Amino acid sequence: MRFLLNIQVRMPGEWTQEQRTELARRETEAAVELMHRKVLRRTFRVVGQVANFSIWETATPEELHAVLQSLPMYPFMTITVTPIIKHPVEQAYEEKYGSIPAL
Amino acid sequence: MRFLLNIQVRMPGEWTQEQRTELARRETEAAVELMHRKVLRRTFRVVGQVANFSIWETATPEELHAVLQSLPMYPFMTITVTPIIKHPVEQAYEEKYGSIPAL
Amino acid sequence: MRFLLNIQVRMPGEWTQEQRTELARRETEAAVELMHRKVLRRTFRVVGQVANFSIWETATPEELHAVLQSLPMYPFMTITVTPIIKHPVEQAYEEKYGSIPAL
Amino acid sequence: MRFLLNIQVRMPGEWTQEQRTELARRETEAAVELMHRKVLRRTFRVVGQVANFSIWETATPEELHAVLQSLPMYPFMTITVTPIIKHPVEQAYEEKYGSIPAL
Amino acid sequence: MRFLLNIQVRMPGEWTQEQRTELARRETEAAVELMHRKVLRRTFRVVGQVANFSIWETATPEELHAVLQSLPMYPFMTITVTPIIKHPVEQAYEEKYGSIPAL
Amino acid sequence: MRFLLNIQVRMPGEWTQEQRTELARRETEAAVELMHRKVLRRTFRVVGQVANFSIWETATPEELHAVLQSLPMYPFMTITVTPIIKHPVEQAYEEKYGSIPAL
Amino acid sequence: MRFLLNIQVRMPGEWTQEQRTELARRETEAAVELMHRKVLRRTFRVVGQVANFSIWETATPEELHAVLQSLPMYPFMTITVTPIIKHPVEQAYEEKYGSIPAL
Amino acid sequence: MRFLLNIQVRMPGEWTQEQRTELARRETEAAVELMHRKVLRRTFRVVGQVANFSIWETATPEELHAVLQSLPMYPFMTITVTPIIKHPVEQAYEEKYGSIPAL
Amino acid sequence: MRFLLNIQVRMPGEWTQEQRTELARRETEAAVELMHRKVLRRTFRVVGQVANFSIWETATPEELHAVLQSLPMYPFMTITVTPIIKHPVEQAYEEKYGSIPAL
Amino acid sequence: MRFLLNIQVRMPGEWTQEQRTELARRETEAAVELMHRKVLRRTFRVVGQVANFSIWETATPEELHAVLQSLPMYPFMTITVTPIIKHPVEQAYEEKYGSIPAL
Repeated sequence: MRFLLNIQVRMPGEWTQEQRTELARRETEAAVELMHRKVLRRTFRVVGQVANFSIWETATPEELHAVLQSLPMYPFMTITVTPIIKHPVEQAYEEKYGSIPAL
Repeated sequence: MRFLLNIQVRMPGEWTQEQRTELARRETEAAVELMHRKVLRRTFRVVGQVANFSIWETATPEELHAVLQSLPMYPFMTITVTPIIKHPVEQAYEEKYGSIPAL
Repeated sequence: MRFLLNIQVRMPGEWTQEQRTELARRETEAAVELMHRKVLRRTFRVVGQVANFSIWETATPEELHAVLQSLPMYPFMTITVTPIIKHPVEQAYEEKYGSIPAL
Repeated sequence: MRFLLNIQVRMPGEWTQEQRTELARRETEAAVELMHRKVLRRTFRVVGQVANFSIWETATPEELHAVLQSLPMYPFMTITVTPIIKHPVEQAYEEKYGSIPAL
Repeated sequence: MRFLLNIQVRMPGEWTQEQRTELARRETEAAVELMHRKVLRRTFRVVGQVANFSIWETATPEELHAVLQSLPMYPFMTITVTPIIKHPVEQAYEEKYGSIPAL
Repeated sequence: MRFLLNIQVRMPGEWTQEQRTELARRETEAAVELMHRKVLRRTFRVVGQVANFSIWETATPEELHAVLQSLPMYPFMTITVTPIIKHPVEQAYEEKYGSIPAL
Repeated sequence: MRFLLNIQVRMPGEWTQEQRTELARRETEAAVELMHRKVLRRTFRVVGQVANFSIWETATPEELHAVLQSLPMYPFMTITVTPIIKHPVEQAYEEKYGSIPAL
Repeated sequence: MRFLLNIQVRMPGEWTQEQRTELARRETEAAVELMHRKVLRRTFRVVGQVANFSIWETATPEELHAVLQSLPMYPFMTITVTPIIKHPVEQAYEEKYGSIPAL
Repeated sequence: MRFLLNIQVRMPGEWTQEQRTELARRETEAAVELMHRKVLRRTFRVVGQVANFSIWETATPEELHAVLQSLPMYPFMTITVTPIIKHPVEQAYEEKYGSIPAL
Repeated sequence: MRFLLNIQVRMPGEWTQEQRTELARRETEAAVELMHRKVLRRTFRVVGQVANFSIWETATPEELHAVLQSLPMYPFMTITVTPIIKHPVEQAYEEKYGSIPAL
């Protein structure tokens, strides 16, 4: 099942640049592996913000929660989870034109 | 360039079911053609709401506006437009694993 | 999977009492059958409001959306959907004391 | 009487992981005992958040307040309390099908 | 048990002055009887608004809901219900000075 | 004249339990004296929150402000002040049944 | 005592220009008399809005409420009432320079 | 031109009472001089808050901004600026009764 | 002086397309003349909304209000007015590089 | 393409005046160069706030994000990005009167 997430990040104000860079490095590493496992399907940077809109796909909501909790930046995230499903427009597209081109 | 849109629809309360169905039919038809033109790239139904999160791709913001204005349901939509760009996590994924699998 | 829903209802102001009563009767009938199918697991009236907090259980989010859309009062509902999962406190309870008593 | 609570937790940013884990351990222990006393009837984790929706049952509102105040995490909680009562749908279910199955 | 309610009233815009006056007359009549039954304990007009803050006392939340639903103006009310309990300051007052003077 | 206040308290996160208890003791002492002076007429604890709804009565708004400013917890309070007056329902009650019973 | 009010006006959408003009004429007439009685002390138009910030002075909050209720536009107003008192800066000004010049 | 300002003040939590008193003294001194220069025309304390509603008059918006920036408490203020103009009611008053009495 | 305005337009739902087009034609005509008079300096369409951000320049706030009130669409607008002034960055630019290029 | 940005700045409370001044100096220097590169086209100070409304022009949204991230004050900014396009009023103006005068 799929979820659209809006994730906003706010690191502690007193952190040094080194701490921030190191956490970002670990976060990217973890997120890349989640993409490789096809759990994090797509993630888009919101222009002008330390935030993303991202599409996640897991077998269960439990798996989504476990994965989010394992992220290095999790304690600094504000997360909104919206369950999403197939839209009738996409279904009508597929019936007429076949599979939807990769994004 | 890409935009994440949240579109919520509210049709006039006094409309008949026939009016609603007919407008929905025309909207789906128009949206399918926008998918075929690769302007509307993906659209997801929000569970429990007459709303979607959708990803649009146009050469310019002007094109996005023109396309939205042409939709049959446009007068009944509340639209939020968020410009989105490539996320560093996707870049790191591609460097390590190649292209991102189709959603 | 389970979802906590907050559903608020607002019927058209110009409706007669008969229209309201008839719709409420059909809604109750539909909801009771959903409880019988174990899709709607529990529903609680919010004191002083035409609203409920309710717990739904479906095999997929698609099923939840289809069920909500089929409700007679659906066009008059404002629905918030929150995916919920097992809480570690309930797990610790079960390990210590066995199954949780019926609510 | 029953209450639906939404409880959100935010621990001080400067706490160590050990402090967090120890507080969570004490909170779980206290909450399990409240479940055993049938004061905390059910608690559900909100996906992606350090928050729950939970159902509490006490003889009086005074008892609910006393119990919440006694929780180790109470100083770090933001709590919303909604009084809930039997919904006519559940009553209609019971009249037709008997008692509601355990959740 | 006691509840603090904030009740705001909005009657349909197209109503005549007569309809408004008649509904207000019936509402006052009903509310006076609820005061006589000691269910509605106090009610205060908010300056400049068709709204009140009021204190209600019922044996159960179910009774409060039933009473609110029976009010002639109920379909036009927006109600917020806050459960309230004895404040430690009042307890300390009573221990030192005896019972609290009538308001 | 009377005012309904909603007062929420948030003490500095780094305070020790002793500091909190001592401030609460001084606050209670001051509030009890204000009740004795019939300035603070009633105060109710909001269930699950460090907050109250309270009814104040002063000869002038100036007196209310002076009294609030003198409270030991004043620097940690967020206060909403709503001027309240006699409600027509209470007037109708008194005309029919005499004085309102003490709360 | 003095109150700062923010008053926003929204007349029914289906009214004719004549109805609007006539109501505005009656409202102005009533407001001018309230200024003459020194109840409405000052009123300022908010640029770009059918709204004002205004300063009212009455012997009691009851008088303020009665006066507002008597306004022809009252059913179409959304009113926020803020009790205001002498500011220490004005007191310090008067001690140093004498009375405050007319606004 | 005139502006209605709402100014809310929040000083750093860790400041001593002496620091607070000293800043308040300097702020009052500066504000009194601005009243003497007829830039700050009136200022009213909001009951129960460290906030004011105030009326400012400057030749230009630039002058207003410069004056606000020069205030000792400026770094601790949250300011809302609303441009205000003569209200038709005041104009009608003056035509009928002459100049508006000093507030 | 200059103002940044956010103007959102909502025409009555029951209007015909002809009524909408006619009003839009008159609005554009009026706005073009305001640009010619250098009162409306710039106006930008917000993508996906019947709204604009616009920059206005008038000798006084009174002139701005009069101009806005004269617009054909004024009864259907929700307007936010923000007074804006020269930013120190533009001043520093001009000192270093001369006049700012036309937008 | 163009974007209207609202940028609000909040520097850490514990910073010295020197730290603030030095950061502001670097920020101005960077912003002036962005104006010289015609990326930052216009910026306006909001009266009474450490905030601006500004118009940015970049070839892509990616460029806008990169530029914002490079600003010295970026970690202390809250940024809202609104894509804006040519308004039909400006087009009608140009057809009738030629190019729009520099702001």
